[in-house]
Amino acid sequence: MPDRFEVTNKDAFGRIGKLETPHGAIATPALLPVVNLNLTLIAPREMRNFGAEALMTNAYIIYRNPHLRETALSTGIHSLLGFDGPIMTDSGAFQLAEYGDIELQSEQIVAFQREAGSDIGTPIDIPTPPDVTHQRALEELEVTRGRINEALRCSGDEMLVAAPIQGSTHLDLREQYAELLSKLSADVYPIGAVVPLMESYRFSELSSIILACKAGLAWNKPVHLFGAGHPMMFALAVALGCDLFDSAAYALYARDGRYLTPGGTYKLKDLTYLPCTCPVCSSGTLALTERQLAEHNLWVSFSELRTIKQAILDGQLWELVERRCRHPSLLQALRTIQTDFASFEAIEPLKRSFIYTSSESAARPEVARYAQKLHRLDVAGRVLVTTDRRKTRHIEREFDVTLLMKAPFGPYPLELAETYPIGQSEVPAPDCVSIKSAVRNLIEFIGFNSLDVTFAYDEQWDHDVLAEVGALATLVRI
Amino acid sequence: MPDRFEVTNKDAFGRIGKLETPHGAIATPALLPVVNLNLTLIAPREMRNFGAEALMTNAYIIYRNPHLRETALSTGIHSLLGFDGPIMTDSGAFQLAEYGDIELQSEQIVAFQREAGSDIGTPIDIPTPPDVTHQRALEELEVTRGRINEALRCSGDEMLVAAPIQGSTHLDLREQYAELLSKLSADVYPIGAVVPLMESYRFSELSSIILACKAGLAWNKPVHLFGAGHPMMFALAVALGCDLFDSAAYALYARDGRYLTPGGTYKLKDLTYLPCTCPVCSSGTLALTERQLAEHNLWVSFSELRTIKQAILDGQLWELVERRCRHPSLLQALRTIQTDFASFEAIEPLKRSFIYTSSESAARPEVARYAQKLHRLDVAGRVLVTTDRRKTRHIEREFDVTLLMKAPFGPYPLELAETYPIGQSEVPAPDCVSIKSAVRNLIEFIGFNSLDVTFAYDEQWDHDVLAEVGALATLVRI
Repeated sequence: MPDRFEVTNKDAFGRIGKLETPHGAIATPALLPVVNLNLTLIAPREMRNFGAEALMTNAYIIYRNPHLRETALSTGIHSLLGFDGPIMTDSGAFQLAEYGDIELQSEQIVAFQREAGSDIGTPIDIPTPPDVTHQRALEELEVTRGRINEALRCSGDEMLVAAPIQGSTHLDLREQYAELLSKLSADVYPIGAVVPLMESYRFSELSSIILACKAGLAWNKPVHLFGAGHPMMFALAVALGCDLFDSAAYALYARDGRYLTPGGTYKLKDLTYLPCTCPVCSSGTLALTERQLAEHNLWVSFSELRTIKQAILDGQLWELVERRCRHPSLLQALRTIQTDFASFEAIEPLKRSFIYTSSESAARPEVARYAQKLHRLDVAGRVLVTTDRRKTRHIEREFDVTLLMKAPFGPYPLELAETYPIGQSEVPAPDCVSIKSAVRNLIEFIGFNSLDVTFAYDEQWDHDVLAEVGALATLVRI
Repeated sequence: MPDRFEVTNKDAFGRIGKLETPHGAIATPALLPVVNLNLTLIAPREMRNFGAEALMTNAYIIYRNPHLRETALSTGIHSLLGFDGPIMTDSGAFQLAEYGDIELQSEQIVAFQREAGSDIGTPIDIPTPPDVTHQRALEELEVTRGRINEALRCSGDEMLVAAPIQGSTHLDLREQYAELLSKLSADVYPIGAVVPLMESYRFSELSSIILACKAGLAWNKPVHLFGAGHPMMFALAVALGCDLFDSAAYALYARDGRYLTPGGTYKLKDLTYLPCTCPVCSSGTLALTERQLAEHNLWVSFSELRTIKQAILDGQLWELVERRCRHPSLLQALRTIQTDFASFEAIEPLKRSFIYTSSESAARPEVARYAQKLHRLDVAGRVLVTTDRRKTRHIEREFDVTLLMKAPFGPYPLELAETYPIGQSEVPAPDCVSIKSAVRNLIEFIGFNSLDVTFAYDEQWDHDVLAEVGALATLVRI
């Protein structure tokens, strides 16, 4: 089977790509609005207006309704929904797990999805919730794996198959099964049963789960984050490598009077002003209907995906993630993944600019990569490292080499003043975090070259961490 | 003259208010789009659709065109513009300063504005640019002051008068003249000649100028930031106390192919995806006309003002400012004004919640205010301060009092665990900046009460700054 997923642009683990399906390509990162045929607030045929290229619907809901099932089988699911683009179907695993009688049905439901002409079908996986025992998670993963294998056998030639990765909050299982499933010929890899984590703002754990799955999966596999529909976490999830989102959030939140924004959720009744430019919010009325609220939720979700794609093209995905991760739970998640930046550094593309948005910027892969660059710097003799050359010109002749300092990067020779990242970085005055990064890189540089260094620093750089430099170099306050 | 400006809600120096004019009230913070009758990309009568309640136009441009002048005088400026809401007129000071012949004209232009029925008129002030000598700034301020006094004499009973505060980048002059002018019966106080600072992203200096003007002005005076029209700095400017903005930016940027967002500016030609939900950007086309680009710029500007107003109502203006000030130049400005938080602390309203967005949150007035609250805490004997009570339960009985720790605030007794800000604060795990704030408050607390304190801290709190606690208390690593 040819590779159905093609990546054209990358930044962090995020990517812009294209997933081919029988009903056309899905440009990723993509959000597939979930359509419930029993409760259609916004009709499938209207979804393109908001920016949707593909939809998701629950095959089980169609299957258990004799009229819908018959229509789906006779006219096809695209005709049933009135949508001619890609349609992904979920198996109703969650509902079925609740009602039991699941042993027989995975094969049936997959066959039904195939016969109804679904573009991407899903077996009945076991959505193991967070925080269960390792043993239960493992046992349920084995059941899921069996169902995926069965689905691959009976999915036919056309329909793509989604292979959900479960494993609860056990990172070893997430990674191990991602790797196992990655070797199968499935087309889409959803990360499953993470909705409870998102609902309780456990974004750090969600991020670790995504990274564990990514570590196991082959690079060329599209990753779907099951049930993720809040725009506040799209940027982070894309940066961690998620390509597809599906969600009924636009409608579920609207039913509950909740108003989505890329910064978080408001209750509509708490709003005196609508903080959004969308066609609904720009109309001037506060009294939004449930339908209008759902429309707003869709506008803002698709706009956020466009914002993310533009950031990937611009090499500014980390900047965007740092801007977005300002709710404490998301900030904690960002700080958590920053402890694993080695893996990001390995895939960091070449950039044109570095914009320091916050102390979190000092932990970006580009700063770690700069430390590697310093190893290639050929320096010998007595070295002056100065934070303000105007104040050290009179002593420069006592040294063989003079280097400057820029936080959060570290030392640099004048010849590199115009090159990336020194020249193409916009940073505020050094702060305690950016000073630490720069000094850490300086210390590594001194140690790697066993250099005789004098570090001349001004008031802005006066910080406790300089004591560590003092053990390796002469410190001069200028 | 009765007070024409009424404030209903406050947060930081920001406020929601209402400025009465002969043609109705302007709800503030407000943006007055500048309409140039020689170049009307978007007609004045259409401006309400975007959210504008009031407009600004240049009286000099009308005055020097015989046809426009005659129409303005015979039918009134509202009829000329086709807009029945409040219209503020600028004097053309900038143009006139360029062409000379200004001695005679200020009185004439003010009389013309009065006769044409302007709601808010402006004399010909001298827009002293940044970085000139103190003497020049002072001399020009005296000329401006004379023109303002003259304008107040000839403005009639109806028209409100704007009294521009100049003074270049000299903070002492800005404050001194703000105070002098504040005693006059002017109605609106524009901060003038700051466009060059905004154009060169000198937001730190702009912020210091606004704070200097605010320090001199009476609290009940509405403040106008002349020429400010980029939504990226609205939140900061409102938090510093600006009530009115005017700008031709929506049109000037559009002419130049530039696309405004609350996070900064894009060039339209560099965009592959439009990162916005507005009616223009949601239409799906990238090929925006100049008019469409101007519309987008207006939608996003008015949406940002609604976002700011909602944040003031929610007591979340600092949160919003911290989210917005992520361009390094704005971040630097935020950090600069944080060095003067004592004045913000004095006016900080009671809040319902504290959301930690970034290390900048640790410098919020609420954290300084918490230190004051600690002075009222009645504690004596041997005190245990613990960062993790589960790990210190076994030694608690050795102490008379046990306090807990929460960054960025500091120590708190269990009885205050549910009260603001300890209970109503959402914070991530302690970081080096929030630990410093909490420890600074702890040190002040120990010193103020001369207490016998043992500070038991866990791994998360391990930080250089604890050495300072060590001089005053017993440190225990738990």
